[in-house]
Amino acid sequence: MKVKLASHYGFCFGVKRAIKIAEEHKDSATMGPLIHNQKEINRLKNDFNVELYSTIEEAKEHETIIIRTHGIPKNDLAELKKNNTKVINATCPFVTTPQQIVKKMSEDKYSIVIFGDEDHPEVKGVKSYGDDVHVVPDPKSLDSLVFKYDKIATVAQTTKQKEKYLNIVNILILKYKEVRVFNTICDATFENQAATRELSSQVDIMIVIGGKNSSNTKQLFNIATENCISFLIEDEKELENKWFENKKICGVTAGASTPDWIIQKVIKKIEHI
Amino acid sequence: MKVKLASHYGFCFGVKRAIKIAEEHKDSATMGPLIHNQKEINRLKNDFNVELYSTIEEAKEHETIIIRTHGIPKNDLAELKKNNTKVINATCPFVTTPQQIVKKMSEDKYSIVIFGDEDHPEVKGVKSYGDDVHVVPDPKSLDSLVFKYDKIATVAQTTKQKEKYLNIVNILILKYKEVRVFNTICDATFENQAATRELSSQVDIMIVIGGKNSSNTKQLFNIATENCISFLIEDEKELENKWFENKKICGVTAGASTPDWIIQKVIKKIEHI
Repeated sequence: MKVKLASHYGFCFGVKRAIKIAEEHKDSATMGPLIHNQKEINRLKNDFNVELYSTIEEAKEHETIIIRTHGIPKNDLAELKKNNTKVINATCPFVTTPQQIVKKMSEDKYSIVIFGDEDHPEVKGVKSYGDDVHVVPDPKSLDSLVFKYDKIATVAQTTKQKEKYLNIVNILILKYKEVRVFNTICDATFENQAATRELSSQVDIMIVIGGKNSSNTKQLFNIATENCISFLIEDEKELENKWFENKKICGVTAGASTPDWIIQKVIKKIEHI
Repeated sequence: MKVKLASHYGFCFGVKRAIKIAEEHKDSATMGPLIHNQKEINRLKNDFNVELYSTIEEAKEHETIIIRTHGIPKNDLAELKKNNTKVINATCPFVTTPQQIVKKMSEDKYSIVIFGDEDHPEVKGVKSYGDDVHVVPDPKSLDSLVFKYDKIATVAQTTKQKEKYLNIVNILILKYKEVRVFNTICDATFENQAATRELSSQVDIMIVIGGKNSSNTKQLFNIATENCISFLIEDEKELENKWFENKKICGVTAGASTPDWIIQKVIKKIEHI
Protein backbone atom coordinates (compact mmCIF):
# COMPACT_ATOMS: atom_id res chain seq x y z
CA MET A 1 0.00 0.00 0.00
CA LYS A 2 1.34 3.41 -0.97
CA VAL A 3 1.23 5.99 1.84
CA LYS A 4 1.03 9.76 1.52
CA LEU A 5 1.53 11.97 4.60
CA ALA A 6 -0.39 15.25 5.05
CA SER A 7 1.68 18.40 4.49
CA HIS A 8 0.91 19.48 8.08
CA TYR A 9 0.18 16.99 10.86
CA GLY A 10 0.83 16.14 14.50
CA PHE A 11 2.82 18.29 16.93
CA CYS A 12 2.81 22.03 16.52
CA PHE A 13 5.98 24.13 16.76
CA GLY A 14 5.54 24.82 20.49
CA VAL A 15 5.10 21.16 21.46
CA LYS A 16 8.07 20.01 19.33
CA ARG A 17 10.20 22.67 21.01
CA ALA A 18 9.06 21.66 24.52
CA ILE A 19 9.73 17.95 23.92
CA LYS A 20 13.23 18.79 22.66
CA ILE A 21 13.82 20.88 25.79
CA ALA A 22 12.68 17.94 27.96
CA GLU A 23 14.99 15.50 26.13
CA GLU A 24 17.88 17.90 26.72
CA HIS A 25 17.19 18.03 30.46
CA LYS A 26 17.46 14.51 31.89
CA ASP A 27 16.28 13.97 35.48
CA SER A 28 14.07 17.07 35.34
CA ALA A 29 10.32 17.39 35.87
CA THR A 30 7.67 19.15 33.82
CA MET A 31 5.18 21.42 35.55
CA GLY A 32 1.96 20.08 34.04
CA PRO A 33 1.90 17.64 31.11
CA LEU A 34 3.81 18.90 28.05
CA ILE A 35 1.25 17.13 25.90
CA HIS A 36 -2.03 15.23 26.23
CA ASN A 37 -0.49 11.89 25.29
CA GLN A 38 0.32 9.36 27.97
CA LYS A 39 2.61 7.29 25.70
CA GLU A 40 4.84 10.30 25.06
CA ILE A 41 4.89 11.20 28.75
CA ASN A 42 5.89 7.58 29.51
CA ARG A 43 8.66 7.77 26.89
CA LEU A 44 10.09 10.94 28.45
CA LYS A 45 10.02 9.23 31.86
CA ASN A 46 11.58 5.96 30.64
CA ASP A 47 14.21 7.37 28.27
CA PHE A 48 15.10 10.68 29.98
CA ASN A 49 13.82 10.28 33.55
CA VAL A 50 11.57 13.34 33.12
CA GLU A 51 8.95 13.40 35.87
CA LEU A 52 5.49 14.96 35.64
CA TYR A 53 4.37 17.29 38.45
CA SER A 54 0.89 18.75 38.71
CA THR A 55 1.41 21.23 41.57
CA ILE A 56 4.32 23.56 42.39
CA GLU A 57 4.58 22.00 45.87
CA GLU A 58 6.05 18.86 44.27
CA ALA A 59 9.11 20.77 43.01
CA LYS A 60 12.24 20.20 45.11
CA GLU A 61 15.10 22.61 45.74
CA HIS A 62 17.77 22.70 42.98
CA GLU A 63 15.62 20.50 40.77
CA THR A 64 15.17 21.45 37.10
CA ILE A 65 11.53 22.30 36.39
CA ILE A 66 10.29 22.61 32.81
CA ILE A 67 7.28 24.92 32.38
CA ARG A 68 4.68 23.36 30.06
CA THR A 69 3.87 24.81 26.62
CA HIS A 70 0.59 26.32 27.91
CA GLY A 71 2.47 28.34 30.50
CA ILE A 72 1.56 28.61 34.18
CA PRO A 73 0.15 31.47 36.30
CA LYS A 74 2.59 34.27 37.07
CA ASN A 75 2.56 33.67 40.85
CA ASP A 76 3.31 29.96 40.42
CA LEU A 77 6.30 30.86 38.26
CA ALA A 78 7.53 33.37 40.85
CA GLU A 79 7.05 30.79 43.64
CA LEU A 80 9.09 28.18 41.74
CA LYS A 81 11.92 30.65 41.17
CA LYS A 82 11.86 31.75 44.83
CA ASN A 83 12.17 28.13 45.95
CA ASN A 84 15.59 27.73 44.30
CA THR A 85 14.47 25.39 41.58
CA LYS A 86 16.12 25.77 38.19
CA VAL A 87 13.27 26.89 35.95
CA ILE A 88 13.40 26.15 32.21
CA ASN A 89 10.57 27.93 30.49
CA ALA A 90 9.12 25.83 27.65
CA THR A 91 6.03 28.03 27.37
CA CYS A 92 5.22 28.26 23.67
CA PRO A 93 6.33 31.66 22.32
CA PHE A 94 2.82 32.04 20.87
CA VAL A 95 1.52 31.84 24.47
CA THR A 96 4.22 34.09 25.94
CA THR A 97 3.01 36.81 23.54
CA PRO A 98 -0.53 37.13 24.98
CA GLN A 99 0.93 36.91 28.52
CA GLN A 100 3.14 39.91 27.78
CA ILE A 101 0.34 41.79 26.00
CA VAL A 102 -1.96 41.36 29.01
CA LYS A 103 0.82 42.57 31.32
CA LYS A 104 1.61 45.67 29.21
CA MET A 105 -2.05 46.56 28.55
CA SER A 106 -2.87 46.28 32.25
CA GLU A 107 0.04 48.62 33.07
CA ASP A 108 -1.41 51.04 30.48
CA LYS A 109 -4.86 50.88 32.16
CA TYR A 110 -6.79 48.82 29.66
CA SER A 111 -9.45 46.34 30.72
CA ILE A 112 -8.66 42.99 29.13
CA VAL A 113 -10.95 40.52 27.36
CA ILE A 114 -9.54 37.04 26.71
CA PHE A 115 -11.56 35.02 24.20
CA GLY A 116 -11.10 31.53 25.63
CA ASP A 117 -12.16 28.98 28.20
CA GLU A 118 -11.78 29.90 31.87
CA ASP A 119 -10.50 26.43 32.85
CA HIS A 120 -7.93 26.07 30.08
CA PRO A 121 -4.36 26.10 31.50
CA GLU A 122 -3.17 28.54 28.81
CA VAL A 123 -5.97 30.97 29.68
CA LYS A 124 -5.30 30.67 33.42
CA GLY A 125 -1.68 31.59 32.76
CA VAL A 126 -2.44 34.51 30.42
CA LYS A 127 -5.11 35.86 32.78
CA SER A 128 -2.68 35.93 35.70
CA TYR A 129 -0.57 38.64 34.02
CA GLY A 130 -3.28 41.31 34.16
CA ASP A 131 -5.31 43.40 36.52
CA ASP A 132 -8.88 43.77 35.17
CA VAL A 133 -9.06 40.62 33.03
CA HIS A 134 -12.27 38.96 31.82
CA VAL A 135 -12.41 35.53 30.16
CA VAL A 136 -15.16 35.38 27.55
CA PRO A 137 -16.07 32.04 25.91
CA ASP A 138 -18.85 33.43 23.67
CA PRO A 139 -20.49 36.73 22.64
CA LYS A 140 -23.38 36.47 25.12
CA SER A 141 -20.92 36.37 28.04
CA LEU A 142 -20.05 40.00 27.23
CA ASP A 143 -23.49 41.21 28.40
CA SER A 144 -22.79 40.86 32.10
CA LEU A 145 -19.26 42.33 32.13
CA VAL A 146 -18.36 45.47 34.04
CA PHE A 147 -15.00 46.94 33.09
CA LYS A 148 -12.73 48.94 35.36
CA TYR A 149 -11.31 51.06 32.51
CA ASP A 150 -12.89 52.67 29.43
CA LYS A 151 -10.35 51.26 26.97
CA ILE A 152 -10.40 47.58 26.08
CA ALA A 153 -7.62 45.30 24.85
CA THR A 154 -8.36 41.80 23.57
CA VAL A 155 -6.37 38.60 23.08
CA ALA A 156 -7.50 35.09 22.18
CA GLN A 157 -6.60 31.60 23.35
CA THR A 158 -4.16 30.41 20.64
CA THR A 159 -6.35 27.48 19.53
CA LYS A 160 -9.60 29.41 19.07
CA GLN A 161 -11.34 30.08 15.74
CA LYS A 162 -10.67 33.49 14.23
CA GLU A 163 -14.26 34.02 13.04
CA LYS A 164 -15.58 33.53 16.57
CA TYR A 165 -12.96 35.97 17.89
CA LEU A 166 -14.22 38.58 15.41
CA ASN A 167 -17.80 38.13 16.67
CA ILE A 168 -16.69 39.11 20.16
CA VAL A 169 -14.36 41.88 19.05
CA ASN A 170 -17.07 43.46 16.86
CA ILE A 171 -19.48 43.80 19.77
CA LEU A 172 -16.78 45.52 21.80
CA ILE A 173 -15.83 47.91 18.96
CA LEU A 174 -19.42 49.14 18.68
CA LYS A 175 -19.61 49.69 22.44
CA TYR A 176 -16.26 51.18 23.42
CA LYS A 177 -14.22 54.14 22.16
CA GLU A 178 -11.03 52.14 21.79
CA VAL A 179 -10.54 48.42 21.34
CA ARG A 180 -7.01 47.18 20.88
CA VAL A 181 -7.23 43.85 19.11
CA PHE A 182 -4.27 41.48 19.25
CA ASN A 183 -4.57 38.50 16.96
CA THR A 184 -2.92 35.83 19.09
CA ILE A 185 -4.55 32.86 17.39
CA CYS A 186 -2.06 30.25 16.16
CA ASP A 187 -2.54 28.76 12.71
CA ALA A 188 -1.13 25.30 13.54
CA THR A 189 -4.48 23.60 14.26
CA PHE A 190 -6.02 25.07 11.12
CA GLU A 191 -3.01 24.12 8.99
CA ASN A 192 -3.44 20.48 10.04
CA GLN A 193 -7.14 20.73 9.12
CA ALA A 194 -6.47 22.31 5.72
CA ALA A 195 -3.81 19.69 4.93
CA THR A 196 -6.25 16.89 5.89
CA ARG A 197 -8.91 18.39 3.63
CA GLU A 198 -6.48 18.51 0.71
CA LEU A 199 -4.98 15.05 1.18
CA SER A 200 -8.27 13.22 1.82
CA SER A 201 -9.57 14.36 -1.57
CA GLN A 202 -6.55 12.75 -3.30
CA VAL A 203 -6.47 9.28 -1.68
CA ASP A 204 -8.67 6.15 -1.41
CA ILE A 205 -8.55 5.84 2.38
CA MET A 206 -7.43 8.08 5.27
CA ILE A 207 -5.90 6.98 8.57
CA VAL A 208 -6.15 9.63 11.30
CA ILE A 209 -3.90 8.95 14.29
CA GLY A 210 -4.72 10.48 17.68
CA GLY A 211 -6.58 10.20 20.96
CA LYS A 212 -10.20 9.06 20.62
CA ASN A 213 -11.10 11.84 23.09
CA SER A 214 -8.92 14.51 21.51
CA SER A 215 -11.14 17.21 20.03
CA ASN A 216 -8.63 18.34 17.41
CA THR A 217 -8.13 14.70 16.27
CA LYS A 218 -11.88 14.18 15.97
CA GLN A 219 -12.09 17.32 13.85
CA LEU A 220 -9.43 15.95 11.48
CA PHE A 221 -11.37 12.68 11.29
CA ASN A 222 -14.62 14.49 10.47
CA ILE A 223 -12.91 16.47 7.69
CA ALA A 224 -11.35 13.28 6.25
CA THR A 225 -14.64 11.35 6.21
CA GLU A 226 -16.19 14.07 4.07
CA ASN A 227 -13.85 13.09 1.23
CA CYS A 228 -13.07 9.35 1.59
CA ILE A 229 -13.46 6.34 3.86
CA SER A 230 -11.48 7.12 7.02
CA PHE A 231 -10.43 5.45 10.28
CA LEU A 232 -9.38 6.97 13.59
CA ILE A 233 -6.73 4.97 15.49
CA GLU A 234 -4.51 5.54 18.52
CA ASP A 235 -1.63 3.33 17.33
CA GLU A 236 -0.59 0.78 14.68
CA LYS A 237 -2.12 -2.15 16.60
CA GLU A 238 -5.60 -1.01 15.66
CA LEU A 239 -5.00 -1.24 11.90
CA GLU A 240 -7.05 -3.92 10.11
CA ASN A 241 -6.00 -5.39 6.76
CA LYS A 242 -9.55 -5.55 5.40
CA TRP A 243 -9.82 -1.73 5.45
CA PHE A 244 -7.26 -1.57 2.66
CA GLU A 245 -8.80 -4.11 0.26
CA ASN A 246 -9.05 -2.70 -3.29
CA LYS A 247 -7.38 0.55 -2.14
CA LYS A 248 -4.29 1.88 -3.88
CA ILE A 249 -3.22 4.92 -1.92
CA CYS A 250 -3.62 5.72 1.78
CA GLY A 251 -3.41 9.19 3.32
CA VAL A 252 -2.10 9.63 6.86
CA THR A 253 -2.50 12.51 9.29
CA ALA A 254 -2.28 12.89 13.05
CA GLY A 255 -3.73 15.04 15.83
CA ALA A 256 -1.69 17.69 17.61
CA SER A 257 -0.81 15.37 20.52
CA THR A 258 0.46 12.45 18.46
CA PRO A 259 4.23 11.93 18.61
CA ASP A 260 6.14 11.29 15.42
CA TRP A 261 7.40 7.85 16.52
CA ILE A 262 3.81 6.56 16.72
CA ILE A 263 3.06 8.01 13.27
CA GLN A 264 6.17 6.31 11.82
CA LYS A 265 5.13 2.91 13.23
CA VAL A 266 1.67 3.30 11.64
CA ILE A 267 3.13 4.26 8.26
CA LYS A 268 5.57 1.33 8.29
CA LYS A 269 2.77 -1.12 9.02
CA ILE A 270 0.47 0.27 6.31
CA GLU A 271 3.30 0.13 3.76
CA HIS A 272 3.61 -3.62 4.44
CA ILE A 273 -0.08 -4.32 3.86
CA MET B 1 -53.31 70.40 10.99
CA LYS B 2 -51.58 68.98 14.04
CA VAL B 3 -47.75 68.80 13.75
CA LYS B 4 -45.39 66.43 15.53
CA LEU B 5 -41.62 67.00 15.36
CA ALA B 6 -39.16 64.07 15.29
CA SER B 7 -37.27 63.48 18.56
CA HIS B 8 -33.96 64.02 16.66
CA TYR B 9 -33.74 66.22 13.56
CA GLY B 10 -31.64 68.87 11.80
CA PHE B 11 -28.29 70.17 13.01
CA CYS B 12 -25.99 67.91 14.96
CA PHE B 13 -24.17 69.04 18.11
CA GLY B 14 -21.03 70.10 16.19
CA VAL B 15 -22.89 72.29 13.69
CA LYS B 16 -25.03 73.96 16.37
CA ARG B 17 -21.84 74.74 18.29
CA ALA B 18 -20.09 76.17 15.21
CA ILE B 19 -23.05 78.41 14.28
CA LYS B 20 -23.15 79.74 17.83
CA ILE B 21 -19.41 80.49 17.65
CA ALA B 22 -19.95 82.34 14.33
CA GLU B 23 -22.81 84.40 15.82
CA GLU B 24 -20.54 85.35 18.73
CA HIS B 25 -17.80 86.58 16.36
CA LYS B 26 -19.19 89.39 14.21
CA ASP B 27 -17.04 90.56 11.27
CA SER B 28 -15.14 87.27 11.18
CA ALA B 29 -14.77 84.74 8.35
CA THR B 30 -15.22 80.99 8.30
CA MET B 31 -12.54 78.84 6.67
CA GLY B 32 -14.75 76.65 4.49
CA PRO B 33 -18.56 76.57 4.80
CA LEU B 34 -19.78 75.76 8.34
CA ILE B 35 -22.71 73.96 6.77
CA HIS B 36 -23.99 72.91 3.33
CA ASN B 37 -26.89 75.38 3.36
CA GLN B 38 -26.62 78.62 1.40
CA LYS B 39 -29.54 80.24 3.26
CA GLU B 40 -27.80 79.81 6.60
CA ILE B 41 -24.51 81.09 5.19
CA ASN B 42 -26.39 84.15 3.84
CA ARG B 43 -27.99 84.71 7.25
CA LEU B 44 -24.59 84.68 8.98
CA LYS B 45 -23.30 87.17 6.39
CA ASN B 46 -26.35 89.48 6.62
CA ASP B 47 -26.93 89.37 10.39
CA PHE B 48 -23.35 88.97 11.70
CA ASN B 49 -21.13 90.01 8.77
CA VAL B 50 -19.47 86.56 8.78
CA GLU B 51 -17.62 86.01 5.50
CA LEU B 52 -16.93 82.67 3.85
CA TYR B 53 -13.36 81.91 2.69
CA SER B 54 -12.40 78.84 0.72
CA THR B 55 -8.56 79.17 0.80
CA ILE B 56 -6.20 80.26 3.57
CA GLU B 57 -4.75 82.96 1.25
CA GLU B 58 -7.97 84.94 1.66
CA ALA B 59 -7.37 85.41 5.40
CA LYS B 60 -6.06 88.87 6.32
CA GLU B 61 -3.76 89.81 9.19
CA HIS B 62 -5.51 90.30 12.58
CA GLU B 63 -8.77 88.98 11.12
CA THR B 64 -10.78 86.44 13.11
CA ILE B 65 -10.93 83.10 11.24
CA ILE B 66 -13.37 80.39 12.32
CA ILE B 67 -12.29 76.86 11.44
CA ARG B 68 -15.20 74.84 10.01
CA THR B 69 -16.73 71.83 11.87
CA HIS B 70 -14.95 69.36 9.53
CA GLY B 71 -11.56 70.77 10.53
CA ILE B 72 -8.78 71.71 8.11
CA PRO B 73 -5.39 70.17 7.34
CA LYS B 74 -2.74 70.67 10.01
CA ASN B 75 -0.44 72.75 7.78
CA ASP B 76 -3.26 75.11 6.82
CA LEU B 77 -4.00 75.67 10.50
CA ALA B 78 -0.31 76.34 11.22
CA GLU B 79 -0.13 78.73 8.27
CA LEU B 80 -3.16 80.69 9.49
CA LYS B 81 -1.70 81.01 12.98
CA LYS B 82 1.68 82.08 11.56
CA ASN B 83 0.03 84.83 9.55
CA ASN B 84 -1.22 86.62 12.67
CA THR B 85 -4.88 85.87 12.16
CA LYS B 86 -6.97 85.19 15.26
CA VAL B 87 -7.97 81.54 14.88
CA ILE B 88 -11.17 80.31 16.53
CA ASN B 89 -11.37 76.55 16.20
CA ALA B 90 -14.95 75.38 15.61
CA THR B 91 -13.82 71.92 14.54
CA CYS B 92 -16.36 69.48 15.96
CA PRO B 93 -14.92 67.73 19.05
CA PHE B 94 -15.93 64.42 17.40
CA VAL B 95 -13.54 65.33 14.55
CA THR B 96 -10.75 66.64 16.79
CA THR B 97 -10.68 63.19 18.42
CA PRO B 98 -9.64 61.24 15.27
CA GLN B 99 -7.17 64.02 14.40
CA GLN B 100 -5.47 63.57 17.78
CA ILE B 101 -5.63 59.77 17.56
CA VAL B 102 -3.90 59.83 14.16
CA LYS B 103 -1.23 62.16 15.53
CA LYS B 104 -0.56 60.00 18.62
CA MET B 105 -0.65 56.68 16.74
CA SER B 106 1.79 58.00 14.13
CA GLU B 107 4.17 59.10 16.89
CA ASP B 108 3.88 55.57 18.31
CA LYS B 109 4.78 54.05 14.88
CA TYR B 110 1.43 52.69 13.82
CA SER B 111 0.31 52.70 10.20
CA ILE B 112 -3.11 54.35 10.02
CA VAL B 113 -6.23 53.31 8.12
CA ILE B 114 -9.03 55.89 7.84
CA PHE B 115 -12.36 54.44 6.73
CA GLY B 116 -13.70 57.34 4.69
CA ASP B 117 -13.70 59.24 1.42
CA GLU B 118 -10.39 60.71 0.26
CA ASP B 119 -12.01 63.98 -0.93
CA HIS B 120 -14.09 64.64 2.17
CA PRO B 121 -12.83 67.74 4.03
CA GLU B 122 -13.00 65.97 7.40
CA VAL B 123 -10.86 63.10 6.07
CA LYS B 124 -8.34 65.49 4.50
CA GLY B 125 -7.94 67.16 7.87
CA VAL B 126 -7.66 63.94 9.90
CA LYS B 127 -5.19 62.45 7.39
CA SER B 128 -2.89 65.46 7.68
CA TYR B 129 -2.10 64.62 11.31
CA GLY B 130 -0.33 61.37 10.54
CA ASP B 131 2.69 59.91 8.83
CA ASP B 132 1.77 56.61 7.14
CA VAL B 133 -1.97 57.21 6.64
CA HIS B 134 -4.19 55.34 4.15
CA VAL B 135 -7.75 56.36 3.30
CA VAL B 136 -9.91 53.31 2.58
CA PRO B 137 -13.45 53.78 1.22
CA ASP B 138 -14.28 50.04 0.99
CA PRO B 139 -12.84 46.60 1.88
CA LYS B 140 -11.41 45.91 -1.58
CA SER B 141 -9.23 49.04 -1.36
CA LEU B 142 -7.26 47.25 1.37
CA ASP B 143 -5.78 44.78 -1.14
CA SER B 144 -3.33 47.21 -2.69
CA LEU B 145 -2.07 48.82 0.53
CA VAL B 146 1.54 48.60 1.67
CA PHE B 147 2.08 49.66 5.27
CA LYS B 148 5.24 51.19 6.68
CA TYR B 149 4.75 49.66 10.14
CA ASP B 150 3.53 46.24 11.34
CA LYS B 151 0.96 47.63 13.76
CA ILE B 152 -2.24 49.20 12.46
CA ALA B 153 -4.53 51.79 14.03
CA THR B 154 -7.91 52.61 12.53
CA VAL B 155 -10.36 55.52 12.71
CA ALA B 156 -13.51 56.23 10.71
CA GLN B 157 -15.02 59.33 9.15
CA THR B 158 -17.65 60.41 11.73
CA THR B 159 -20.61 59.99 9.34
CA LYS B 160 -19.82 56.47 8.13
CA GLN B 161 -21.85 53.34 8.89
CA LYS B 162 -20.55 51.21 11.74
CA GLU B 163 -21.25 47.89 10.01
CA LYS B 164 -19.11 48.90 7.04
CA TYR B 165 -16.33 49.98 9.38
CA LEU B 166 -16.37 46.51 10.97
CA ASN B 167 -16.00 44.88 7.54
CA ILE B 168 -12.74 46.75 7.00
CA VAL B 169 -11.49 46.29 10.54
CA ASN B 170 -12.14 42.53 10.45
CA ILE B 171 -9.95 42.05 7.39
CA LEU B 172 -7.13 43.92 9.09
CA ILE B 173 -7.47 41.94 12.35
CA LEU B 174 -7.04 38.64 10.49
CA LYS B 175 -3.96 39.97 8.67
CA TYR B 176 -2.03 41.91 11.30
CA LYS B 177 -0.75 41.11 14.79
CA GLU B 178 -2.20 44.24 16.34
CA VAL B 179 -5.08 46.41 15.19
CA ARG B 180 -6.05 49.32 17.38
CA VAL B 181 -9.64 50.17 16.58
CA PHE B 182 -11.00 53.59 17.53
CA ASN B 183 -14.72 53.95 17.09
CA THR B 184 -14.93 57.56 15.94
CA ILE B 185 -18.33 57.26 14.26
CA CYS B 186 -20.86 59.83 15.45
CA ASP B 187 -24.41 58.71 16.17
CA ALA B 188 -26.13 61.99 15.14
CA THR B 189 -26.99 60.95 11.55
CA PHE B 190 -28.33 57.62 12.73
CA GLU B 191 -30.34 59.19 15.54
CA ASN B 192 -32.13 61.41 12.98
CA GLN B 193 -32.85 58.30 10.91
CA ALA B 194 -34.17 56.29 13.85
CA ALA B 195 -36.39 59.19 14.95
CA THR B 196 -37.77 59.53 11.39
CA ARG B 197 -38.54 55.81 11.31
CA GLU B 198 -40.40 56.04 14.61
CA LEU B 199 -42.37 59.21 13.83
CA SER B 200 -43.37 58.25 10.25
CA SER B 201 -45.10 55.15 11.58
CA GLN B 202 -47.28 57.29 13.90
CA VAL B 203 -48.51 60.04 11.51
CA ASP B 204 -50.60 60.39 8.33
CA ILE B 205 -48.06 62.42 6.35
CA MET B 206 -44.36 63.30 6.74
CA ILE B 207 -42.65 66.52 5.65
CA VAL B 208 -38.87 66.15 5.32
CA ILE B 209 -37.05 69.49 5.11
CA GLY B 210 -33.60 69.67 3.51
CA GLY B 211 -31.52 70.10 0.38
CA LYS B 212 -32.78 68.09 -2.61
CA ASN B 213 -29.13 67.09 -3.22
CA SER B 214 -28.31 66.34 0.43
CA SER B 215 -27.65 62.63 0.81
CA ASN B 216 -28.61 62.50 4.51
CA THR B 217 -31.91 64.33 3.75
CA LYS B 218 -32.71 61.90 0.94
CA GLN B 219 -32.08 59.02 3.33
CA LEU B 220 -34.58 60.50 5.81
CA PHE B 221 -37.08 60.88 2.97
CA ASN B 222 -36.63 57.24 1.88
CA ILE B 223 -37.17 56.03 5.44
CA ALA B 224 -40.31 58.18 5.82
CA THR B 225 -41.88 56.97 2.54
CA GLU B 226 -41.65 53.40 3.79
CA ASN B 227 -44.24 54.22 6.46
CA CYS B 228 -46.49 56.99 5.11
CA ILE B 229 -46.95 59.46 2.29
CA SER B 230 -44.03 61.86 2.45
CA PHE B 231 -42.76 65.06 0.79
CA LEU B 232 -39.25 66.49 0.57
CA ILE B 233 -39.12 70.30 0.59
CA GLU B 234 -36.37 72.94 0.94
CA ASP B 235 -38.59 75.58 2.59
CA GLU B 236 -42.20 76.47 3.48
CA LYS B 237 -42.90 77.96 0.03
CA GLU B 238 -43.02 74.48 -1.49
CA LEU B 239 -45.86 73.27 0.76
CA GLU B 240 -49.13 72.49 -1.08
CA ASN B 241 -52.49 72.47 0.70
CA LYS B 242 -53.80 69.46 -1.24
CA TRP B 243 -51.17 67.17 0.32
CA PHE B 244 -52.92 67.54 3.66
CA GLU B 245 -56.49 66.76 2.58
CA ASN B 246 -58.09 64.14 4.86
CA LYS B 247 -54.91 64.02 7.01
CA LYS B 248 -55.06 64.59 10.75
CA ILE B 249 -51.48 64.55 11.96
CA CYS B 250 -48.30 65.59 10.14
CA GLY B 251 -44.77 64.52 11.13
CA VAL B 252 -41.82 66.86 10.51
CA THR B 253 -38.13 66.12 10.34
CA ALA B 254 -35.11 67.83 8.77
CA GLY B 255 -31.71 66.95 7.31
CA ALA B 256 -28.46 67.71 9.12
CA SER B 257 -27.93 70.98 7.20
CA THR B 258 -31.36 72.49 7.78
CA PRO B 259 -31.38 75.45 10.20
CA ASP B 260 -34.01 75.62 12.89
CA TRP B 261 -35.52 78.90 11.65
CA ILE B 262 -36.47 77.24 8.34
CA ILE B 263 -38.01 74.30 10.23
CA GLN B 264 -40.03 76.71 12.41
CA LYS B 265 -41.43 78.52 9.35
CA VAL B 266 -42.50 75.19 7.85
CA ILE B 267 -44.19 74.07 11.07
CA LYS B 268 -46.06 77.39 11.45
CA LYS B 269 -47.39 77.17 7.89
CA ILE B 270 -48.52 73.53 8.26
CA GLU B 271 -50.30 74.36 11.54
CA HIS B 272 -52.36 76.96 9.67
CA ILE B 273 -53.49 74.51 6.97
